[in-house]
Amino acid sequence: MSDLVLYLGNKNYSSWSFRPWIAMEAAGIAFTDHVIPFDYPAGNPEFKPISPTGRVPVLHHGDVRVWESLAIIEYVAELFPEAGIWPKDRAARAEARSISMEMLSGFRALRGACPMNIRRTPAEIDLPEGVMDDVARIETIWKGLLARSGGPFLFGDFSAADAMYAPVVNRFEIYRLTADETVQGYMARMKAHPAWQKWQAAALAEPWIVPEDEA
Amino acid sequence: MSDLVLYLGNKNYSSWSFRPWIAMEAAGIAFTDHVIPFDYPAGNPEFKPISPTGRVPVLHHGDVRVWESLAIIEYVAELFPEAGIWPKDRAARAEARSISMEMLSGFRALRGACPMNIRRTPAEIDLPEGVMDDVARIETIWKGLLARSGGPFLFGDFSAADAMYAPVVNRFEIYRLTADETVQGYMARMKAHPAWQKWQAAALAEPWIVPEDEA
Ligand SMILES: N[C@@H](CCC(=O)N[C@@H](CS)C(=O)NCC(=O)O)C(=O)O
Ligand SMILES: N[C@@H](CCC(=O)N[C@@H](CS)C(=O)NCC(=O)O)C(=O)O
Repeated sequence: MSDLVLYLGNKNYSSWSFRPWIAMEAAGIAFTDHVIPFDYPAGNPEFKPISPTGRVPVLHHGDVRVWESLAIIEYVAELFPEAGIWPKDRAARAEARSISMEMLSGFRALRGACPMNIRRTPAEIDLPEGVMDDVARIETIWKGLLARSGGPFLFGDFSAADAMYAPVVNRFEIYRLTADETVQGYMARMKAHPAWQKWQAAALAEPWIVPEDEA
Repeated sequence: MSDLVLYLGNKNYSSWSFRPWIAMEAAGIAFTDHVIPFDYPAGNPEFKPISPTGRVPVLHHGDVRVWESLAIIEYVAELFPEAGIWPKDRAARAEARSISMEMLSGFRALRGACPMNIRRTPAEIDLPEGVMDDVARIETIWKGLLARSGGPFLFGDFSAADAMYAPVVNRFEIYRLTADETVQGYMARMKAHPAWQKWQAAALAEPWIVPEDEA
């Protein structure tokens, strides 16, 4: 058992959990994961020793607690500087952080209307205002970076930036949000990644159904 | 003129601009700032070469563009590793990033109902649901860290974490959101910081009034 323990929500729906999980898994870092039953109440006092915010993901490393998906990624990037979690070039790394934080702080229309759902069969839904603006901005980001790096991932090799956008790849697919071929090519490469395949298999095996997330 | 140019919104109201500005100023980094008139339209094509998102803050460093307040802070922390922008201890740095990202991604009730407004005379307002939960969580964060570090700032010396919460110090004051003495002591030390004083003087000298931000 690794001394890095990542507490997650369920794998089918918990988009914030997916981000550090796939960043760590794709980087080949040894860690243990623990799924917290999806319906724990956020204010549950039993959860306090696990997560200071009552939310997941949270990483335990000995006495250290790291919460917020992207702070977890920064922490493991510091612990394993050779793992290539961020792009090596300083300017590319700055851009990777900029788009990662744009994801962390924004795209609320898309996040609200289109929950991640690994096992859902693709089908269109009615989209509230703002969702297609978010989709357009994300397509611009992805296409610009792929044109520059040449792929296969946003900055060439798989990086934290791809991890931060991984749940969006699922959303674009299951709600049929894009017809762009470059974008679909990127999505196909993301879904073929061994780390994605491993998460997906675990998600498909989960028994839980969360009605609010079945859009 | 420094080769680091930080584009900001106005200083009275632009909370996201305040964060990297005070982090860089408090760390003694040489940079030029440019205020963008507060009423530029987000989609204005003239603004495209300045900011890829149409939002501020954005840092220009030669050809490099860094956007998102916290990504700017990470970038200057890498450029100036001796400036002490993040706490030196790895576990403290992880916690500083966790609370900084909690700020970046959360506290939406507080942010929505209580805009930053440097020149406002303190007075209570009606608070929608959720605001006092945000206040309570922030008090817990600040008091826990101050008890551990002994102050004067969250991690002892002024760090990026204080910068990320600087606009909250203003909000707590102008809407009278806290009666806690430890919290008020921290707020007084933040407001006495030379970097805060410099921002405040510039904000007070600004002519613009934004009605939506006059709660
Ligand atoms: N900004 C946080 C978001 C974390 C978050 O909202 N997690 C969800 C699961 S995906 C959660 O714990 N929800 C339970 C709750 O808020 O009560 C991060 O990036 O980690
Ligand atoms: N998450 C972004 C937020 C940036 C932001 O919303 N900035 C505001 C000014 S404080 C803005 O540019 N608003 C104009 C707009 O959205 O059109 C950051 O941390 O930099």
